[in-house]
Amino acid sequence: MSGTRRWGWQRSVLGEHVAEFLGTFIIILLGCGVVAMAVAALNQSGRGELIFAASGDWLLITWGWGFAVCFAVYVAGGVSGAHLNPAVTLALAWRRGFPWGKVPGYIVAQVLGAFAGAAVVYLNYRYAIISYESANDINRGAENSVPTYSIFGTFPAPYYENWFGPFLDQVIGTAILVAFVFAVTDEYNAPVKANLAPLIVGFIVVAVGISFGANAGYAINPARDFGPRFFAWIAGWGEVAMPGNYGNVNTYFWIPILGPIVGAGIGAAIYDFLIRNTLIARGITPDPDVSEEGRTAVD
Amino acid sequence: MSGTRRWGWQRSVLGEHVAEFLGTFIIILLGCGVVAMAVAALNQSGRGELIFAASGDWLLITWGWGFAVCFAVYVAGGVSGAHLNPAVTLALAWRRGFPWGKVPGYIVAQVLGAFAGAAVVYLNYRYAIISYESANDINRGAENSVPTYSIFGTFPAPYYENWFGPFLDQVIGTAILVAFVFAVTDEYNAPVKANLAPLIVGFIVVAVGISFGANAGYAINPARDFGPRFFAWIAGWGEVAMPGNYGNVNTYFWIPILGPIVGAGIGAAIYDFLIRNTLIARGITPDPDVSEEGRTAVD
Amino acid sequence: MSGTRRWGWQRSVLGEHVAEFLGTFIIILLGCGVVAMAVAALNQSGRGELIFAASGDWLLITWGWGFAVCFAVYVAGGVSGAHLNPAVTLALAWRRGFPWGKVPGYIVAQVLGAFAGAAVVYLNYRYAIISYESANDINRGAENSVPTYSIFGTFPAPYYENWFGPFLDQVIGTAILVAFVFAVTDEYNAPVKANLAPLIVGFIVVAVGISFGANAGYAINPARDFGPRFFAWIAGWGEVAMPGNYGNVNTYFWIPILGPIVGAGIGAAIYDFLIRNTLIARGITPDPDVSEEGRTAVD
Amino acid sequence: MSGTRRWGWQRSVLGEHVAEFLGTFIIILLGCGVVAMAVAALNQSGRGELIFAASGDWLLITWGWGFAVCFAVYVAGGVSGAHLNPAVTLALAWRRGFPWGKVPGYIVAQVLGAFAGAAVVYLNYRYAIISYESANDINRGAENSVPTYSIFGTFPAPYYENWFGPFLDQVIGTAILVAFVFAVTDEYNAPVKANLAPLIVGFIVVAVGISFGANAGYAINPARDFGPRFFAWIAGWGEVAMPGNYGNVNTYFWIPILGPIVGAGIGAAIYDFLIRNTLIARGITPDPDVSEEGRTAVD
Repeated sequence: MSGTRRWGWQRSVLGEHVAEFLGTFIIILLGCGVVAMAVAALNQSGRGELIFAASGDWLLITWGWGFAVCFAVYVAGGVSGAHLNPAVTLALAWRRGFPWGKVPGYIVAQVLGAFAGAAVVYLNYRYAIISYESANDINRGAENSVPTYSIFGTFPAPYYENWFGPFLDQVIGTAILVAFVFAVTDEYNAPVKANLAPLIVGFIVVAVGISFGANAGYAINPARDFGPRFFAWIAGWGEVAMPGNYGNVNTYFWIPILGPIVGAGIGAAIYDFLIRNTLIARGITPDPDVSEEGRTAVD
Repeated sequence: MSGTRRWGWQRSVLGEHVAEFLGTFIIILLGCGVVAMAVAALNQSGRGELIFAASGDWLLITWGWGFAVCFAVYVAGGVSGAHLNPAVTLALAWRRGFPWGKVPGYIVAQVLGAFAGAAVVYLNYRYAIISYESANDINRGAENSVPTYSIFGTFPAPYYENWFGPFLDQVIGTAILVAFVFAVTDEYNAPVKANLAPLIVGFIVVAVGISFGANAGYAINPARDFGPRFFAWIAGWGEVAMPGNYGNVNTYFWIPILGPIVGAGIGAAIYDFLIRNTLIARGITPDPDVSEEGRTAVD
Repeated sequence: MSGTRRWGWQRSVLGEHVAEFLGTFIIILLGCGVVAMAVAALNQSGRGELIFAASGDWLLITWGWGFAVCFAVYVAGGVSGAHLNPAVTLALAWRRGFPWGKVPGYIVAQVLGAFAGAAVVYLNYRYAIISYESANDINRGAENSVPTYSIFGTFPAPYYENWFGPFLDQVIGTAILVAFVFAVTDEYNAPVKANLAPLIVGFIVVAVGISFGANAGYAINPARDFGPRFFAWIAGWGEVAMPGNYGNVNTYFWIPILGPIVGAGIGAAIYDFLIRNTLIARGITPDPDVSEEGRTAVD
Repeated sequence: MSGTRRWGWQRSVLGEHVAEFLGTFIIILLGCGVVAMAVAALNQSGRGELIFAASGDWLLITWGWGFAVCFAVYVAGGVSGAHLNPAVTLALAWRRGFPWGKVPGYIVAQVLGAFAGAAVVYLNYRYAIISYESANDINRGAENSVPTYSIFGTFPAPYYENWFGPFLDQVIGTAILVAFVFAVTDEYNAPVKANLAPLIVGFIVVAVGISFGANAGYAINPARDFGPRFFAWIAGWGEVAMPGNYGNVNTYFWIPILGPIVGAGIGAAIYDFLIRNTLIARGITPDPDVSEEGRTAVD
């Protein structure tokens, strides 16, 4: 804890990369963790009489991802602004002056963090996954391994005939995410105070999952999907993970990358053009508390 | 983004109409979205072993509508006060000095926003809905299409014999909504601070849904019901949507319009006469923080 | 709204009685409302495919009662301090200097409010209740009417052999309630700010319901149980409601009255003797924000 | 309440021991309480038609433990800082200057509080437990008594072959707990204000339970597991409780002690080295509000 040289990387942009890595790592650690709970662990855990009618339920999963994002933002917020999502980073570069030069580094850190998070989830839940595969005659990498693959990456519902439906779903879901995040942190509107913005951002993720989660697994974040998907590809799920073949929709992996990026732009534009610009036009003064809290602003 | 003419509509009442449109759009987007999840998407999504005992559950639906309102208020609050409900607009005009001249414009914007929200929900969930109709031999527009219609509009429980029961239910539910919203934003009482009022307003909607949701689907907002109902009428649900024929109760559409308006007046009156006037009578000074936050007050 | 004479009752203690009446009315309106939902309405509501594995679930009920108390406190807090519970009123008189002379009036207002709340719940859910009774061959007032009676009053689990078990359960549950309420509003400790104490008090009720709700229905409030019980007695449930005969335990009605009063005293004493006195002894200064917010303090 | 001598123990470190005892008592009272609800009480309570598909569910349990910790922190926070967990106490001694000399006393108080909490849970739920044992032919102390034992202590899922899996799970779960607690209370980051940190700490416990609860019951606290385990050993569960024999893993009791201690250190180190040090290196000034709130800081 002494010396001065240690401050080197922390003062440089590397400090922000580490924060983005750790934050996205946390999202996946807890987010993919809850899916592992729902798919493989809870129903095999022998918790007394706790036999589930369904192996976990959607509320469990949505609260799990919501709290994952909430606490990832609490951890990383002060250092990097806690984008934790390439689509958010791009939207902030376009609409909030985040330096374009920083964008590639942030995105790399986010994807690596998501990959590492998936690896730790596998490390911890591999006993449950292997036991579940064995009990259900699942051959990892075969079509019947989608349930265990789903711990890591997203996939479209069987009722889709082609790529357009889930792509649209990802555009809509991410537009909602980004518009709401822009709203609750807008110093011209009613920005959340008392340093509770990370909690409310977590609730945004819960809301998207509750209302737009089942069509395509609400990746709404290219790093959240690609990092764990790539890990699953390495860990034996093969084409189920990459390029992603599911029923009628094959070569799926690019949809949870491109859909969220398009959606983030649309959501940011809608919020800014219909609300924020109006507030500025009306001469609303920015909230001074939030300006003062600028260093820890949730983005 | 440059020039000055662009500020025209934003500075006029049109800016508020846009905010009311967008806010009500969001309520329906996420609110009808969660019903689409519960009715058609989750149970067909192939999420691993996630087979539901019931197709979603009431908590999912109530949290979904609650967060829908919460974030709609965060988005629209700063510009228009986020009424997002004709019954609330009328109550504010009667009891809080909202200009009567603005009432028609607000209501039109709310209904249009609700209609547009229903259209986007259909756009995104049409694959799931069509697949569900096909799997369950549902003929859209026939009596057995009430389940898919219920994604959009409300309907009374089968135990009602006539219009009075669900009408009373809508009066009570909306009276609760408005009395509670008046309470948590009353500068003479204990108004929610730290810009968390939208969250608490969302919880009010959760509370009404949990305790008064099943009798008639807790529209508690004429725009929330009429906009999506009108869309469903166009989209093929016919008389199931408009005028609304369900078992013993026919020509139902006017109940979720008139019931909430009556209920909002009652709830506002009860709160003001029994609580707010008492606080004023006792010389309580208004909370200065909330007065300062006036521009973003949740109404 | 003009004149001066109208301020009469509002400035006197009658204003507080009205607030206590209304607040307790709200607790029962939403609290018994959610039980009516779980017992009779949801499972008969024809909400699409929403067939419940259980008729509602415990989380629905616990969130329902929690939000009921939360918003009752928001409504009544500024005027009367929102005791809304005779056991709380007595504990505040003993430990916080609430005038003993005001105690009887507060308690009467609370019981009347609870009775009125039960009446409105019956008014709104009578269609569902009657339909449910008919479908399940329930004779109101006979032993098989405990399920519908349970919408209103509490009863002990069948595994109890005598009065002592549920009495102890009510003592423990209410001790938890009062100790926690004292904690989150203690200006010497870490009192909840931003006028969010009513929300946290609601969460206390959720917590008690989740961890101590099933043994005896967590009345933890003499008015909450006696008011609706008395209403149910009038409305035809007879001895099932009053004096309360259930399996091995008869003449039950006094347990949810006396148990909470004893428990409130124990909880208040434990908190004050083990925590608050220590804080005072250590010279902690009271939180100035909360002192300033004194008029709206949650008790 | 008069005299001066009474302040003796309260001003000494004994006052803190009492607070730690009471806080940990509350965690177990409500935490083991909710498991008793899920295992034995709810499904035998005769709550109308409330027959559960599963005897309670995981969300009930995770919210129960979360609120348990939340309110335990509200109660004890002002006096002792509310560690309520030996692993947290050790992490604070290592990383935040908590006096090492106080560590043993805190840990003893925590374990005693947990033991006492388990005793009161048994006192209150013994009717339900005995009835459940009788109805399911459970011989307390035999292998088939793990379900009722699980009200008190944790155990590993059957898919584990040896100690390493659950040990790793406890390390990961506690690392998450401590890193998040450090984050939300870090005056250099975005510390929760308005005295809502106890709520957010409760949500951290919910998050760990949702995403990492089923592998080994998320003790993540040596006192939480050892105290109730020791009580269960005395109360007749014998070797099922101590040393803890479950399927493939025997002599289990040390894992929920050592795993959390190792995990707490790892979580604290990761947060401090990757985030807090970066914030300090960048010259961020500590949040003055939180410094002022120092006496009630959540640790």
